[in-house]
Amino acid sequence: MSELCSKEEALETIDHNWYPRPQTELVEVKSALGRVVARDYFSTNTLPVFRSAQMDGYAVRAADFVKGHPDTASFREGQDYARADMGDDFDDKFDAVILVEEVNFSQGIMGFSPGLVVKPGLNVRSAGSQLAEGELLVAKGRTLLPRDLGFLQMGGHDFVEVFCKPKVAFIPTGSELIAAGLKPQRGQNLESNSLMVSETLKALGAEVWCLPIVKDSPEVLEDALDRALAWADLIIINGGSSKGGDDHNARILKNKTKFLLQGVAAAPGKPLGLYLSGTVLLVNLPGPMIAAFYGLEWCLGAIVNKFFKRPTVPRATVKVTLTEALQGPKGLSFLFNLMVTRKNGQYLASPLDPRSARTYQGIAANALYMTKIEGENLEAGDEILAQIVRAEDFV
Amino acid sequence: MSELCSKEEALETIDHNWYPRPQTELVEVKSALGRVVARDYFSTNTLPVFRSAQMDGYAVRAADFVKGHPDTASFREGQDYARADMGDDFDDKFDAVILVEEVNFSQGIMGFSPGLVVKPGLNVRSAGSQLAEGELLVAKGRTLLPRDLGFLQMGGHDFVEVFCKPKVAFIPTGSELIAAGLKPQRGQNLESNSLMVSETLKALGAEVWCLPIVKDSPEVLEDALDRALAWADLIIINGGSSKGGDDHNARILKNKTKFLLQGVAAAPGKPLGLYLSGTVLLVNLPGPMIAAFYGLEWCLGAIVNKFFKRPTVPRATVKVTLTEALQGPKGLSFLFNLMVTRKNGQYLASPLDPRSARTYQGIAANALYMTKIEGENLEAGDEILAQIVRAEDFV
Repeated sequence: MSELCSKEEALETIDHNWYPRPQTELVEVKSALGRVVARDYFSTNTLPVFRSAQMDGYAVRAADFVKGHPDTASFREGQDYARADMGDDFDDKFDAVILVEEVNFSQGIMGFSPGLVVKPGLNVRSAGSQLAEGELLVAKGRTLLPRDLGFLQMGGHDFVEVFCKPKVAFIPTGSELIAAGLKPQRGQNLESNSLMVSETLKALGAEVWCLPIVKDSPEVLEDALDRALAWADLIIINGGSSKGGDDHNARILKNKTKFLLQGVAAAPGKPLGLYLSGTVLLVNLPGPMIAAFYGLEWCLGAIVNKFFKRPTVPRATVKVTLTEALQGPKGLSFLFNLMVTRKNGQYLASPLDPRSARTYQGIAANALYMTKIEGENLEAGDEILAQIVRAEDFV
Repeated sequence: MSELCSKEEALETIDHNWYPRPQTELVEVKSALGRVVARDYFSTNTLPVFRSAQMDGYAVRAADFVKGHPDTASFREGQDYARADMGDDFDDKFDAVILVEEVNFSQGIMGFSPGLVVKPGLNVRSAGSQLAEGELLVAKGRTLLPRDLGFLQMGGHDFVEVFCKPKVAFIPTGSELIAAGLKPQRGQNLESNSLMVSETLKALGAEVWCLPIVKDSPEVLEDALDRALAWADLIIINGGSSKGGDDHNARILKNKTKFLLQGVAAAPGKPLGLYLSGTVLLVNLPGPMIAAFYGLEWCLGAIVNKFFKRPTVPRATVKVTLTEALQGPKGLSFLFNLMVTRKNGQYLASPLDPRSARTYQGIAANALYMTKIEGENLEAGDEILAQIVRAEDFV
């Protein structure tokens, strides 16, 4: 297996060969959640625009309180005081706000808590104390969170310049495949990878175009590739990455594009291939669902993040105890689906054999483990750091 | 401050008073990402439907190999052997698959690797070895991941019964508020909480209806509440939760609904109020952006999760070292925004003062810390577990 490159080497090959040049576009702030900002944004607003009350209370003239509490018998609302609640503007003749708790009214006459001292600016929030013109709202390269959208609006921005989404074309290939929606007959298999892959990549910020199933015909595949090349930043050719007689995919890819590598020390899904055509990266992703899932995990997500020049955030991990032995052969990083349960405050993990063709084995799993390429020989009772798939099981 | 209940007590009050009864609906599997499944789903398909080749190779009759390698001079494709790649069906007369690597052709005559032994079933994948009819695909209560959607499709499901989204009405209130899109004038403030709140709750699976701004008029607020009560599972009245003279909100809410509590030991945002009307929960969320953000963090997200009967997954944490003192008063859990940087492999956290009205202080932050209600007196150099807001800064 020495000819296989590691996952890390494959990602480095992508780094050294693929230089996508994302365009930018102006989108409404309201629709910008999860988009990546293409420039620094600064506030064009000053808030409060004018000084305002910092707390709920009554605006007064501090001058009236210079010699202690004034005689309020002749005080009239609007002339000598005014209600001013948190965030409220008030008349320019007032310059201090007395907390509502420090004011009482007896037969319409205003009174104050004993000991109250009123100075100019008391409980007054100055202009710009919330946000000032010119302050940074969000920096270039940030992935926009809900609160960033609020900040952008506060700062006076209705539109935000973001990097365009990477355009991903997904081409499912294989004569045995039928689209979901009909009952598979003998010799047929359901094509369900397009949905799994596209929903995963869309959540990372990609735009995904899934082509119809390409049966094993070189002409049709070439045509599909041409259509995808005319549009995409990344093309995923699913299936036909191994040595099958009907697998024209690798041959056609080698003819049409620059070959980068084939075969990665990650299983299931070893025969993954990488190709380049100008600024378009092409990934020949193995067909079996679990193999396609592993490719998503280590490779396709990282490619979308690389497009945005942002690091890939690894899954959260949790320490689990193996209930049975787990073996990772030397020279391959195997993906194990784990079924983790909690017992006496301890997480117990049952590994599911990745060498089985059973798709079902991934379904109940709530965590993952990828063995080290050096090989691993773990015993029941050993502790490992599992990657969390279903976070609700670990609260 | 002893009259304030803790965040945990407030959530328990919700648990003991609010019993939403989510309906279910049938949605296309393709559109079901993030939805919560309302019943167990089992496979209606068996895959492969019939036995198929497990590897790329040639299908043959094992009987021809009983006495060792047969004389292949008269072997004809289709009659004595057939190409069969991984996943392929092949003619019933064949019962074994020889790996493509073990076969060679010399002048059109088939040959085999020395030592090759062929028995019935060699490299043949049996029917149902990938997925069998009746196997569990996804269990009730699961939040659907991309791979679950693939599994549902493989199992023959085009539609999936999910819990309806909780209907959330958001009512921004305050005479000083203007909608984003125009320049605020003296005495005006921008309403940007609706976007922050709705995008956060939509990401958790809620449907959110944002009403226009309700100026401080009791009649208009009552009308808005009636409209929201006719539709929503959860109503968020933003602003007017404290004691201001224009803050009719609490009074109107107390008149129209069952009062649950007001005042939570969480700041900014202490005056948060909870009310109930039949099966509709109402939250009076404080107006300042940072207060609304804190309410989202500890309260509103948990409410959406409670609707789905699923636990709230806490934010990932990271150990950071404080660069300056951080004080949390006794009896209040303060939200601190933290600006965390990495230096010599260590994370250094600068806390931003939550008692400042400065919205800006939250913008650059990439982590959060909520002080313990018992009070905290942390010194520069102390280590705390910070909650991660911008995961890309911690890779």
